This record gives sequence, structure tokens and C-alpha cells, in this order.
Amino acid sequence: MKSFAAATAQLRRRLGANVVLTDDTARTAASYDSAKLPFRPEAVVRVTQEAQIGAVLALANRHGVPVTTRGRGTTLTGAATPVQGGWVLDTLALNTIAIDDEAGMAHVQAGAKVADIQRAAEAKGWFYPPDPSSKEYCTIGGNIACNAGGMHGGKYGVTRDFVIALRGYLPTGEAVTWGTATKKFSAGFNLRDLWIGSEGMLGVVTGAVLKLIPQPAARWTLLTSFKDETAALRAALALFKLRVQPAICEFLDRESVLCAERATGRAVFAGQAGRPVLLLEFAGGKAEVRETKQIVLGWAAEHATGSRAAKNREEAEQLWAVRRKCSGAMFELGDAKLNEDIVVPMRNYVKFAQFLAKLKRDSGLAIPTFGHLADGNLHVNIMYHKAVPAECRTAERTVRTLMETVVALGGAISGEHGIGLAKTPFLRIQHSPAQVRAMQAVKRALDPNGVLNPGKMFEPFEVWKHPRLEVKLPWDHK
Amino acid sequence: MKSFAAATAQLRRRLGANVVLTDDTARTAASYDSAKLPFRPEAVVRVTQEAQIGAVLALANRHGVPVTTRGRGTTLTGAATPVQGGWVLDTLALNTIAIDDEAGMAHVQAGAKVADIQRAAEAKGWFYPPDPSSKEYCTIGGNIACNAGGMHGGKYGVTRDFVIALRGYLPTGEAVTWGTATKKFSAGFNLRDLWIGSEGMLGVVTGAVLKLIPQPAARWTLLTSFKDETAALRAALALFKLRVQPAICEFLDRESVLCAERATGRAVFAGQAGRPVLLLEFAGGKAEVRETKQIVLGWAAEHATGSRAAKNREEAEQLWAVRRKCSGAMFELGDAKLNEDIVVPMRNYVKFAQFLAKLKRDSGLAIPTFGHLADGNLHVNIMYHKAVPAECRTAERTVRTLMETVVALGGAISGEHGIGLAKTPFLRIQHSPAQVRAMQAVKRALDPNGVLNPGKMFEPFEVWKHPRLEVKLPWDHK
Repeated sequence: MKSFAAATAQLRRRLGANVVLTDDTARTAASYDSAKLPFRPEAVVRVTQEAQIGAVLALANRHGVPVTTRGRGTTLTGAATPVQGGWVLDTLALNTIAIDDEAGMAHVQAGAKVADIQRAAEAKGWFYPPDPSSKEYCTIGGNIACNAGGMHGGKYGVTRDFVIALRGYLPTGEAVTWGTATKKFSAGFNLRDLWIGSEGMLGVVTGAVLKLIPQPAARWTLLTSFKDETAALRAALALFKLRVQPAICEFLDRESVLCAERATGRAVFAGQAGRPVLLLEFAGGKAEVRETKQIVLGWAAEHATGSRAAKNREEAEQLWAVRRKCSGAMFELGDAKLNEDIVVPMRNYVKFAQFLAKLKRDSGLAIPTFGHLADGNLHVNIMYHKAVPAECRTAERTVRTLMETVVALGGAISGEHGIGLAKTPFLRIQHSPAQVRAMQAVKRALDPNGVLNPGKMFEPFEVWKHPRLEVKLPWDHK
Repeated sequence: MKSFAAATAQLRRRLGANVVLTDDTARTAASYDSAKLPFRPEAVVRVTQEAQIGAVLALANRHGVPVTTRGRGTTLTGAATPVQGGWVLDTLALNTIAIDDEAGMAHVQAGAKVADIQRAAEAKGWFYPPDPSSKEYCTIGGNIACNAGGMHGGKYGVTRDFVIALRGYLPTGEAVTWGTATKKFSAGFNLRDLWIGSEGMLGVVTGAVLKLIPQPAARWTLLTSFKDETAALRAALALFKLRVQPAICEFLDRESVLCAERATGRAVFAGQAGRPVLLLEFAGGKAEVRETKQIVLGWAAEHATGSRAAKNREEAEQLWAVRRKCSGAMFELGDAKLNEDIVVPMRNYVKFAQFLAKLKRDSGLAIPTFGHLADGNLHVNIMYHKAVPAECRTAERTVRTLMETVVALGGAISGEHGIGLAKTPFLRIQHSPAQVRAMQAVKRALDPNGVLNPGKMFEPFEVWKHPRLEVKLPWDHK
């Protein structure tokens, strides 16, 4: 890895030793994210003012120093890993949140925590729907970088759908603003949305204006079980046909349900251990939810083998236990996980379920799968034992088959995690050579010196060949 | 203007004389759009298959032929005007529409008419909200090119918010697809959204997958009047504070109302001639709309000087007359119009109303203004007489003052029309030199030979110095 001692010293003189950290603790902490693939940076730049970022990038361009922007580092893809060393730009101190109550907008800095934004909005009767499961830790900057989704995607949309304007820095260090704090903007090329999902490779986001929607006055939660995966998926399709839009529609396959049941020590539905479930939440005005409830209860009576509705928030939380507990318990099925977040179009749900059943049989691996059925975004967890070479090879082969099948079914290799390092081997399954060339041309145009997050997206990185750090992060599933 | 006779002959041999038209009628018809600024193309390429576009672009790149993509040509900015000659790529024959009933998506080709898409969706219980006033003529390709909006923007969003995937051709002629027919996609740079609003300069859209939402079961329309503009704007803000989201919230200032009243021959509210109005429409489930109605009637009693609710669709249509009639009648105030579509953030509505009143006084021009208050997108119509040089100069000065003020108030120079030719003099009021440089770098990266829609966006074109064609188009306001 190249060394940039002189540039680092210069930056330290310029911004101060409190901002430019070169001590061991800081560098180690910034050497990995939730992918747990450590690469040591030369310095960690903990900016306290947005303008410092312009100075960092100007110097980085002069000396060719790789700069990796970092929020909390909850990304599972390694997108915040400083894989080529250089500087990690830590944005956590930029964390202001202001709600524009009148316009229904949140003005936030990149380091603001997503759950804090939600709470600030809720306090004024507004709702910010995107909710990655790490929302109590992850930053809005990181959410923008990977276009994070969450459970509300089907009805409300993902991060992209709530970003009204962005400000930040071009890779070459100039301050820019994309869009205004208005719901319409059609003036010039849309670099705002080009930045969203660009994983810190085309600019550094320092602030955003987010759209809020009125907080739903009522919510209603229903847990339902089905005789098998195909029945559950068909039932979901039947529900959507009724034109009721669940705010949340979480699917857990048999293996995921069994994980949750092991974790809680009891069957989700007594006497029906291991039945796949749909966890549904409806939100809206009181009258609207009341209307929907009747329709949905009729649907459940027709399709489900078991159903249980929550009478209040406390009971809803009990129903949610099955979803919250499943991930952690998966490590009983293997000590290593390839955690994918593929997307399948609705018309191919049943075909995908059949493929997944075959994949489990053929590979002999446990592949518990759950996810967001209203938008087809499924978390496929390929579990294996890292000390067993045959299992490693099978896992590697299995993830490739998964990606090829998903794309053949008209789906996406990632719905909300992004590419980072972990999905680089599959980018060219999704995108044609012309598409990749166009993306790379855009990258070169905006980042001629290639300083922002180099080594990501386009350069295949075989994550399964790299040892992972044995470390427990605060947001790891219990 | 450069001539490309050899290239045109070659293209004609390649695609046939039925596709590559060089006759006078075709070239004249394609020489202008709704901006009515004629520039004669060398040929009109009426493609009948998407793949022909690849051939057109390959040849255009080899010979440096400007290519201007065209839908119906309803754009008011001149974005579809072949200002540098060359070839006009007419996409009207690519007009298929297929509704995916299960997923709630529309698969359409670029030349499909927006109102046809809405009707096809509605027939299956789905709703496609973006509704530019030219929807009975304009194509979805054109809507994507300028990120068209319409009256539903505040609650539902604009074209961008409903585009799930795009397919088409890079400026260099390669076929590409951005996104999949799924509601989540986070795999690679987002060139889909970079294309949206890029006014045919970064690629040619041939097809799109659009998101649909459930058709609202109920609608309710209310027309209200206020003592003056400031009172109307304050009332709108008070309404939004109640967290009811009107599907439509149209504002008409005094001058616009007077235009409508002249056109219909009677006062909107008897005895209240020239009172500014808000035209409100609420949409949703039956129970939801019923709930909202009570809240809104209470609001109207408190804030409005007059109010009239529709009991059915027919009465609603009568209320809508005021909005539909105002534009045409404006030409009694001048025979030339600078039709702007600026956006103002909600917090500055009242300031903007005060500025507009002063602008009218200072300029001595009639500037009837109406538009979409739920998103701040206002149509400011600067009327003047083109034979009066002093009025022309005043109009030119006035539009610049308007743009500078809008940006100073935190707004946008265009909300839904785009830049095209007409707003090129103002692009640099909205965007800093670094922002413009970044956009131009992206343009060069994707279109190295500069063939797609050259002369737009970045090169100032003073529309008021060019004579406009005296021609009546089918979508011109009566």
C-alpha cells in the first residue's frame, strides 16, 4: 500500500491534530466496517466543519491520496473500507437535524443518525419512512451513499425517494449543491440522484434536505403463517391484488422461522413449528386502517394457516420478535454468512421460491431467507463453516448461481446494500460492458485523479478469500 | 448550419425512405416545438423499432451529426428544437403500453402518450399521478426528458418519482438498461436518474417501467376564494399545517382569476370578481376523504371569503373551469408571453407574493401567476406586446429579476419545464461554475462527440431576440 506521509503531515498542520488522527486506535477503528475486512488507513480525518472537506480533497488530489468517506460503518458490503489505505474521512461530527415543520422537510447533516431523524420528524407529526435495520446506528450520509431501503420500501419508497436536495463536495474539492429545498426541480443535469447510491465514489455528501410525509395516525400489525413458501408467496400476491398496500410485508422462510423459534424457545404458532410467515403492518388514517383491516382479515381467513393480530403496540412488538430474532440465530447454521440482498420481480416470486428450494438441496447449505415482499427485496443468507474448505467453495459457487438466476429472472443483485467490495464479482452479471463503461466514464469525468473510494464497485474483490475480523459490532444481531 | 448530405444519404439507404424523411413537410414540422423557434433539420428519422436508434447514433457519431430526440414537441423551452440542424429522431411510433397488474407497474415505450398510460392504468385500478397540462398530447419520453410534473406533484411527486427503470441508447449508440422492474435497485451508479431531466442530452430513452399506485377510491373538490394573494398563501400554509395533503392545490392570483372570468363571462364567486382562489382536490380511500372533508370545511370557514364544494364529478369539472380557462385568456394582456415555471420554498411564499406585486408595479406589465402550491411550483406569465420595443426590454429585464429573486429565496428557476433554450440565460443563476463544470464533464464523458441535442442547456440563447412562428398547435390553450 502506498504511503502518503508528507501529504498527511501537511493535512495535519492545516486542520490540526484533533481533526487529523494518526494514532493506532483511530486508524484501527477506521480500518474496517461491518464487512470486517481490515485495511489500514494512514490517517482518520474527523471533520468538525463541512468546509474542512474541501481542504482534504484539494490536498488528496494534489498528492493522489485515496479518500474513503465513512459514517458509522454499518455497511455490510465493505463500501467504507479503506481498501487502498490513504485517509478515512469521518463525518460523524456533522450531525445536525432541523425539521421544517411547515414544508414537511428535514434539513440534516450527513452524520445524523437515521433513527434520530425519524424521532425528530415524529415529534412534529411527520414521518421519514426509510428504515434500514441498523437505523439506531447508521447515518443518513451512509444511507444516501448506498440508497438504503428497509421494510417500508414497497409502499413508501427508499432513501432516494426522500432526498430533495444534497450539498457536499465534488471529488476535486469544490463545494456544490444539487437541488433546492423544494419538491420540484428541473434545472440542469440531475447530479443529486447520480450521487445517491454512488457509494462515496462521485462526491462527499455533507448535508441533505429530506422529504417527510404526515405521520400515519394508525397502525395495525398481523402475523400470518402458511403451509409452505410457495403458499406464502402466492398469498402475498393475492393480497396485493386487493390493492391494499401494506406499509410493511415481511416474509420469513421455514429456515428463518426455525432460527427465530430456536432463539425464542417457542413456536411462532403453537403446533406449527417452522411454518413460513408473513408479518404485515398497515398504516394510515384511522378510518383507512379500519377499512383495510376488514379486507385483510378476510384475506387471512382464506389463505393463512394461522394468524394473530396485535391489539396494541405492545402486542405488535411481540409479533415483531420473530423478525428481529431470526438473523442472530442463523449463526447456529454456520459460522460464516454470505449476506445477499437480491431483488426479484413480483411475477417471478414463485419461480424464485422453487429455485431457492433447489439451491438449498443442491448445495447442502442452510440458506435462510427473509425480506421485504412488497418490493421483492429478499435477504438470502448463505451459511457455511469457514474451516471447511468444501463448504467455502460451495458457498462461493452458490452465491454466483444465485446472482445469475436473480438477473435471469429480471431482478437485481442488490436492492439496498450496494456493491462495495462484496458484490464487485457480480456487477457484470447485472450490467453490460457498455453500462459499466458509461459508469466508469462518469467516474473519470468527476474524479479525474481517482481519489474517492478507489478499488470499489468495478474491481472484482473476492470477499470469501479474505479473512474477516473476529469482532462484535454494536449493531450485530444478538 | 453544417450540412451532412452524405451521412443523411447513407442513413436513408440503411433504414429506408419510409423512416428517414427528407421532404419539406416533414422537415418543417420537425423544425420547431411548442417554443415556436424554427430551425430546419436535414432529415426526420421516424423510427419504427428501437434498434434503429443504435444505427442512427452510430452514424451520427461517425459524421458528427447533431441528433435531437423528439416526442410530441409540447415542450415550452425549445428542448426539442434542432437548433444546430442535423437529424430529428421522432419516437412517436414507439408507443406500446402494458400494465403489470400484479406488480402495479406500467411497461411503456417512449412515444406512449401520458394520458393513454393513465387510462390504461386506471382500467386496472391503478393510478399514474404525473399530469402535465399537455397530457393528452405529450409523450412519456418527453416527460422523462424534462422530469415533467403537473398538479399532483406536492402529494405524489413528479415523473422522476415514478420511473423504476429505463432502457435506451447511450449517445455513442450502445443499447443500455438502467434498473430492473423492481422497486429496489442499488447496483452500480444511478444513470437512470441522471437520464431523467437531462433533456435528451445524455441518452435516448426508448422504454420505461413506471411505478403505479392504487387508484384513489374517492375524490373531493373544493374551490375557495381569498381577499388577496397574501391571504390565499397564508391560508394554504395553514391547511398544510393540519397535515391533510391535498392531491391538488392550485393557486390563481387576481390577474389569473380575472383572465378566467373574462373567458367564462362571469365571476368565479358572485360579487367577488378578481379574488385569488385556491382550487383543492383531495383523494384517497372513501373513509379517508370523508375524514379530511370535515377538517377542510372547518379550515375554509376560518380562512376563505368564499367556498364551493363539488357534489359529484360534473360539479367538480365546473369548478375546474376557472383553472382551465385562465391561460388562454392571458393573451388579451399582451401578444407575447414569457412563460416561467419557477419554484419557491414554502417558507418564502409570502415574501414571493410581495416581490411579485412589486414586480408588477415596477414593470408595468401584466404578470398573471398561478400554479401548484403544494410544491411551490408557480407559473409566472410575463405578458408583453412584441411590437413595442420598450415592453420587450422590460420583459427581458423582468424575467431576469424574477430568476435572481427566486434563487435568492432558495427556489428553482424551473420546476417541471427544464432548461432547453428558453432558460439557458439563467442556468448560471441557479448553478455555480463548479456545478456547471461537473455537468459539462458528465456530458463530455457520455457524449464525447457532442451529437445529442447540442446547443442546449449550457449555451445562452436569448429567446426574446428570436422571432416566434405564428402557428397554432393542438395543445395551445384556447
